[in-house]
Amino acid sequence: MTAISSDRAKNDVSRSLARAVVRSRHNDIPEHAHQEARRALLNYMGCALGGADHPAVDMALEGLGFMSGPPKAAIVGRTEAVDMALAAFVNGISSHVHDYDDTTPSNYIHPSSPIASALFAFASTTPVKGEDFIHAFVLGFDAVTRIGDATYPAHYQAGWHSTGSVGVFGAAIAIGKLLELSEEQMLWAIGLAASQAAGLRDNFGSMTKSFHPGAAARSGLEAALLAKVGFTTGSTPLEGPRGFAAATANNQADFTKITDGLGQEFRLSGNTYKPFPCGIVVHPTIDACCELHREGLRADSIESVELRVAPLVRDLCDIRSPEVGLQGKFSIYHAAAIGLVRGKGGLAEFTDDAIHDPQISAMRSRVQAIPDTAVDEDSVHVTLLMKDGSRIERFLEASLGNLKRPLSDAQLEEKFRDQVSVLNPERVDSIITKCRRIAALDNVGDLIRLTAPEPAPKDA
Amino acid sequence: MTAISSDRAKNDVSRSLARAVVRSRHNDIPEHAHQEARRALLNYMGCALGGADHPAVDMALEGLGFMSGPPKAAIVGRTEAVDMALAAFVNGISSHVHDYDDTTPSNYIHPSSPIASALFAFASTTPVKGEDFIHAFVLGFDAVTRIGDATYPAHYQAGWHSTGSVGVFGAAIAIGKLLELSEEQMLWAIGLAASQAAGLRDNFGSMTKSFHPGAAARSGLEAALLAKVGFTTGSTPLEGPRGFAAATANNQADFTKITDGLGQEFRLSGNTYKPFPCGIVVHPTIDACCELHREGLRADSIESVELRVAPLVRDLCDIRSPEVGLQGKFSIYHAAAIGLVRGKGGLAEFTDDAIHDPQISAMRSRVQAIPDTAVDEDSVHVTLLMKDGSRIERFLEASLGNLKRPLSDAQLEEKFRDQVSVLNPERVDSIITKCRRIAALDNVGDLIRLTAPEPAPKDA
Repeated sequence: MTAISSDRAKNDVSRSLARAVVRSRHNDIPEHAHQEARRALLNYMGCALGGADHPAVDMALEGLGFMSGPPKAAIVGRTEAVDMALAAFVNGISSHVHDYDDTTPSNYIHPSSPIASALFAFASTTPVKGEDFIHAFVLGFDAVTRIGDATYPAHYQAGWHSTGSVGVFGAAIAIGKLLELSEEQMLWAIGLAASQAAGLRDNFGSMTKSFHPGAAARSGLEAALLAKVGFTTGSTPLEGPRGFAAATANNQADFTKITDGLGQEFRLSGNTYKPFPCGIVVHPTIDACCELHREGLRADSIESVELRVAPLVRDLCDIRSPEVGLQGKFSIYHAAAIGLVRGKGGLAEFTDDAIHDPQISAMRSRVQAIPDTAVDEDSVHVTLLMKDGSRIERFLEASLGNLKRPLSDAQLEEKFRDQVSVLNPERVDSIITKCRRIAALDNVGDLIRLTAPEPAPKDA
Repeated sequence: MTAISSDRAKNDVSRSLARAVVRSRHNDIPEHAHQEARRALLNYMGCALGGADHPAVDMALEGLGFMSGPPKAAIVGRTEAVDMALAAFVNGISSHVHDYDDTTPSNYIHPSSPIASALFAFASTTPVKGEDFIHAFVLGFDAVTRIGDATYPAHYQAGWHSTGSVGVFGAAIAIGKLLELSEEQMLWAIGLAASQAAGLRDNFGSMTKSFHPGAAARSGLEAALLAKVGFTTGSTPLEGPRGFAAATANNQADFTKITDGLGQEFRLSGNTYKPFPCGIVVHPTIDACCELHREGLRADSIESVELRVAPLVRDLCDIRSPEVGLQGKFSIYHAAAIGLVRGKGGLAEFTDDAIHDPQISAMRSRVQAIPDTAVDEDSVHVTLLMKDGSRIERFLEASLGNLKRPLSDAQLEEKFRDQVSVLNPERVDSIITKCRRIAALDNVGDLIRLTAPEPAPKDA
C-alpha cells in the first residue's frame, strides 16, 4: 500500500490511521516487526503470569467479578472464567502491576499491556489464527507508538499515564482489526477510544497504576465492539480542535509522527524490556549500585550517597519514604538502597517487606538525588561518601535493558522463567515455544489455555 | 458538621471532599436542596424514558449486551434485565441522547445523567430507601458542581465534555455513599474516578456524546465497588501536581470552589431544565424565533437572518450543515431555522427528517451568527432582513428555562408527560407522584419497576 504523505497529516490524521489499519495485510509487516512483536509477547506473557496472583488482581475480581457475564473468556494465569471485557481488564492489571513490562523510551509508554491484554481476552473466546493475532498486535503497537510520540512530552508532562490514555487506541485498533471493521467503523473505534482516554500519574505508586492498562484494554475492546454495530463518533478524534491532542497535550502535537510512513513502517524497534520491576528511569541507578555491590562494596561502610540523575527521574520517582512495595517502584532512593544493600533489584526488592527492611530503610535515608540536565535518562553518576572519609565515584552510561544494551533473547527467556516458577517446567517450555512460534499457531487459544495454573491442559 | 475552611483547601482537597461525604447525615441536607433534587430526578426520569428507544441505546445493548452478567438490574424504560454496570451505562445514554436533560450553567455540565444513571441501576438490584437515595444524589450533585465550578472554564475549553469527565466523580461519590465507604475508601473512589475521567467534545453531534455520561455512570459505580474492596489510589487525585486539575484544566483550578462550605452548603440551586432538546446555548435563539413565529411572521417572507450571539455559541454550536439530527442539536443555524419555520423546537425538530426538511434546510443556509461579547449566554439579538426590504429586530434577554426564567413545576410535569407518551396515563401519574415523594419511598426499586414498558407492574 502507499504511504500517506505528511503534508496531509494535519487535516486527516484519524481517518488516515483508520484507513491504514483497515487496508493493512499480513505481508505488509516486515520481519523485524514480527520479531520484536514475538519478544514483546513473550515478555508480556511472563509479566501477566508473574502478576496474576497479585492482591490488585484478586481485588479486581472480588470488586467487579459478580457482574461478569457468560464465562467464556480466560484470564492469563488464572483459573476463573469470566466475560471477555473483564478478562481484558484483569489481564491489564496483572501484566503491569509489577511494573516489569515493556517500555518505549521515546514516550515512556508500556505498550504491550493494554494491547495484548485485550487481544488475549478476545482470542480466548473466539478462535484467532496466530498470524492474524500478531498482525493485529503490530498494528495496535504501531498506533500507540505513533500517537505517543506525536503527543510526547506535553501529554505525559500534563499528568497523563500514557500507558492508559494512549494505550486505549492500541487495544481498539487491534481488536477492530480482528473484527474486520470498515474504515468508517475503525474511525469510530478510534473516536470511542479517544473518549475513554484516561489515567493520571497522581495514582503512581498505588494499585491504580495497573488499573490504567486494564481499563485501556477493556475500553479499547468495547470501542471496537460498539463501532462494529454502528455507534457513531466525530471524525477528528485525534486532531480536532476539541480532540485528544488538544485536550490532553495542550495542542502541542506533531501529527506527522502519526502519519509519516503509515502502513509502510511499523514502530516496534524502539521497544525495551525491563530487567528490574520498577519505574524505568531508576534502572541506571539500580544497575550501577548492583555493580558496586558485586565489586565487594559493603553497605555499612557507606556514610551517604549522592546521585546525579536526569531531571525526569525526580519528576517521576521522587517518593522519599515509600510505605508499600508499589511506592518503592517510584523511589530513586529505594533504587539506590536495594542495589547497595542487596546487590539486586528483583521482585523481592519491591515487596512491602523489602520497603520495611531496616537496612534498606536506613540506606534510603542517606541517599540524595540531584537533577542534572547533563545526565541523560539511560545514565547516572553515583558518588559514595564512605565512613572512612574516602569517596567512590561511578558513572554508568547505559543501563541494562535500554536501547543501547537490550536484553538478549536468552535474557528475556531467563526473565520469563523467573516470573513463572509456579508452573511446571514442561509447561514453561511449551509456553515459550508457542510465544516464539505464535504466528504459526492455528488458534492462539491453545497458548492461553497453557497459562492456567490448574487443571493441566490436554496438550501440555 | 463543621465547614472546612478555604485556607486548607489547596492542601487537602480530595480528602476534605471524601471526609465531608462520609460524615454527611440526612438531616444536613436543607429543604431547598431536597426540592431541587426532586425536580432534577423527575426531569431525569422523563429524559431517560424519552431516550430509552433511541438507536444509540439499542446499539449499546447490541454491542455490549452479550457480555452482561447476571440479569439483576433494570434499565429505566426498558424491559431487558442486565448487570448493574451495563444498566448504569445504558441509563446514561438514554437520559442524555436527546440533549434534553438538566444543565448547570456555571459550568455547562449535565449533572443528573451520570449520577442518577448509576443510582437507579444500583437501586434496581439492592433495596435502597428513598431518603438514602436522595441523600446520595445530593452529595453526588454537589460534588460535580463543585469540581465543575473549580475547573471551569479551563477544563471545558480544553476540549473536555465535563458531563462525562466531571460527572464520573458524582457517580462514584453517590454510589460510595450507599456502599457506606470509609473516608479512606471514599478517597480511593475519587482517585479511581479521576483515573477514568474522560469524554471529548470532538464527539459532539454523534452518539458518543451520550456515551460520555453512560461511561461516567458505569466508571463511577465501579470506582466505588473497587474502593470498597480495598483497591488503592494516590491521595491527591484532584489537586496533586499530576492529578485531575493539572492534567485537564491546565492547573487553572480554584480549589476553594470545592472546599468552601463543604458539608454545609449544597450546590443544587444553579440547576436548570431545558425546554428544547439541544445544546443549551442555542436556546435563546429558538425561543426568540418561536416568539416571532407566534406573532405571525412567515418564514418565506424572510430574505436572511443575522444573529448576534455570545461567543460560546459559535464555539459550541457552529455546525453549518448538519447531516443527522444529533448534529442539528449543535447548530445555531438549525436553531434559528426551526423557530422561524415551525415555531417550535421539540424532539421532532431534531430528527434526521427535520434536518433534511427542504424548508428548514433552505432557511438554515440564510442564517448568519456573529459572536458578540456584549451578548450574554442567556440572550440573543435577532435581525431579519425581509424580502420586502424591511428589517425586523428582536432582543431576547432571558430565554425560557434559564435561571432567570426557570421552568415551573407544572412546566416540568408537562415536559415529562410529552416524553413518556408511550406509557399509559395511570402509570405516568404514578411515576410523577413517586418522583415527587421519592424521599418517602421504602424502596426506590418500586419507582424503577414502573418505568418498564411491559409487563405492567403489580402496583400500577
